[in-house]
Amino acid sequence: MAELPSWRDTPTRRAIVDFVERVTSGAAAVPPEERIAVFDNDGTLWTEKPLPIQADFILRRLHEMADQDPSLREKQPWKAAYERDYAWLGKVMEDHYRGDDTNVRTLLGGVLAAHGGISVDDFERQADSFLRSAKHPTLGRGYIDCAYAPMVELLRHLEANSFSNYIASGGGRDFMRPISEEIYGIRRDRVIGSSTALDYVADEGGGTIIRKPEADVLDDGPAKPIRIWSRIGRRPLIAAGNSNGDLPMLHFAGAPARPGLRLLVLHDDADREFDYIGGAEAALETARAEGWTVISVKNDWATVFAEPK
Amino acid sequence: MAELPSWRDTPTRRAIVDFVERVTSGAAAVPPEERIAVFDNDGTLWTEKPLPIQADFILRRLHEMADQDPSLREKQPWKAAYERDYAWLGKVMEDHYRGDDTNVRTLLGGVLAAHGGISVDDFERQADSFLRSAKHPTLGRGYIDCAYAPMVELLRHLEANSFSNYIASGGGRDFMRPISEEIYGIRRDRVIGSSTALDYVADEGGGTIIRKPEADVLDDGPAKPIRIWSRIGRRPLIAAGNSNGDLPMLHFAGAPARPGLRLLVLHDDADREFDYIGGAEAALETARAEGWTVISVKNDWATVFAEPK
Repeated sequence: MAELPSWRDTPTRRAIVDFVERVTSGAAAVPPEERIAVFDNDGTLWTEKPLPIQADFILRRLHEMADQDPSLREKQPWKAAYERDYAWLGKVMEDHYRGDDTNVRTLLGGVLAAHGGISVDDFERQADSFLRSAKHPTLGRGYIDCAYAPMVELLRHLEANSFSNYIASGGGRDFMRPISEEIYGIRRDRVIGSSTALDYVADEGGGTIIRKPEADVLDDGPAKPIRIWSRIGRRPLIAAGNSNGDLPMLHFAGAPARPGLRLLVLHDDADREFDYIGGAEAALETARAEGWTVISVKNDWATVFAEPK
Repeated sequence: MAELPSWRDTPTRRAIVDFVERVTSGAAAVPPEERIAVFDNDGTLWTEKPLPIQADFILRRLHEMADQDPSLREKQPWKAAYERDYAWLGKVMEDHYRGDDTNVRTLLGGVLAAHGGISVDDFERQADSFLRSAKHPTLGRGYIDCAYAPMVELLRHLEANSFSNYIASGGGRDFMRPISEEIYGIRRDRVIGSSTALDYVADEGGGTIIRKPEADVLDDGPAKPIRIWSRIGRRPLIAAGNSNGDLPMLHFAGAPARPGLRLLVLHDDADREFDYIGGAEAALETARAEGWTVISVKNDWATVFAEPK
């Protein structure tokens, strides 16, 4: 098993290796330009607990804002950020996956204000610096080392088989771009994700692109296949996700007359990572009903995280 | 002059060749991943007169609709399409470039209705079939042979120098995608353009993406640098356009501390193509004031169109 060494020799691993073999050689081979694989990021390529990594980035900024302006401390989401009330924040995502976006909108107001009005270049510097310095609260490693080693190996295996890998994440596109190539080998132009509205401001030096404090697209649910089509112009052959918001993207992989591999990461390993199915109930149910490939962190992965560099 | 054989040996050609040499070798070399070149399509890579090629595609569909439903014949833009009133249609674009979008909105209503409600796959088949069969009204060639040979050579020259070429067009992204690789060697994932709103409709077979009869983004003016950033995540090194709507994109190419090549195609050759500056007045003025490279069809190009295949 030269390829995928962090995977145990299970039916899951064999399903993946066999699929790749089937679509790259023999009668069912798919032309290289159609070998598109799309990956959700949070909970699929890197850890998303106790909070998505970008949430920590935003919370630190909200904390800083509340530190500077005491009036913000009485107002959500600054209040939760200032009081480090992770329960409120965790509930926002759970509510979202259950279809209640009331608090998502409250949180979004803060998210947009946190980095609104700055240039995309300044935002990138802040994201890059955060990702390279901040530590995960419980896993004993920096965020930049929170990618799943087996998934990174899968990306390399696909690349070696002429696949083009894309990130199709609910997370912020411009948050992931500074590190996507280093962590995943996925170039910045292949990062699809949520975006804020942008403004082009002409100036003497070629103009500047500014983040407006307005939402643009939340790349989740049915927005995922739409964003994938818009960016790539093709239906993927492989899609990997871990939550209900990935369902449309998973369905979208593979047309009726063509094979398709749908991968769903199941977080069932409290010892090495986290054990949760909140926000993934419908996805797991569909995966079982449709015979999609469920990846058990506990059973299918020999190693979860690579040794930090 | 092995490269760019359809270009005459003029200062324009030398400016282009010298720039490419300067950013690919020696002290001012730019890393390959930053060698991004963006090209407007209509009037920059292929001809846009007497009407943009996509306009003919839409007009034929509007004519067909008015043919089936007589009540549409009294209503713009169906009226103009049915009566082949090219003057009305030409005026729409001229008004647009002068900043008056009243008729653009009228036209857009028809445009959206013309191909609304169909799947992106059906739209692609229609666009592909049109582009491979329809003829240009005066140039004596099919639309697929209306690309400028010198610009196609420039794309190849850039590619040979590790540039990544993108189309950043006001035209429809999904209209250009079926032929962009064949005509320009630009893959479908590198086509940026205007888009209509899309809907993801779940079904038994992987879901379908449907064109909604609603505008999404008109990729013109300040939207161009924003769309370029959103798609690529980088500031281009080279930008080429031909009209006022390309100005922000042209400005955006080249940061203060980095070289940038701005190319503006000037249509001044009534014998071999067309002679017009309508909609390009501000662009030409800026190009002269800023010292950008103006490409004269008449003087800089030895050949305008390749022999039809």
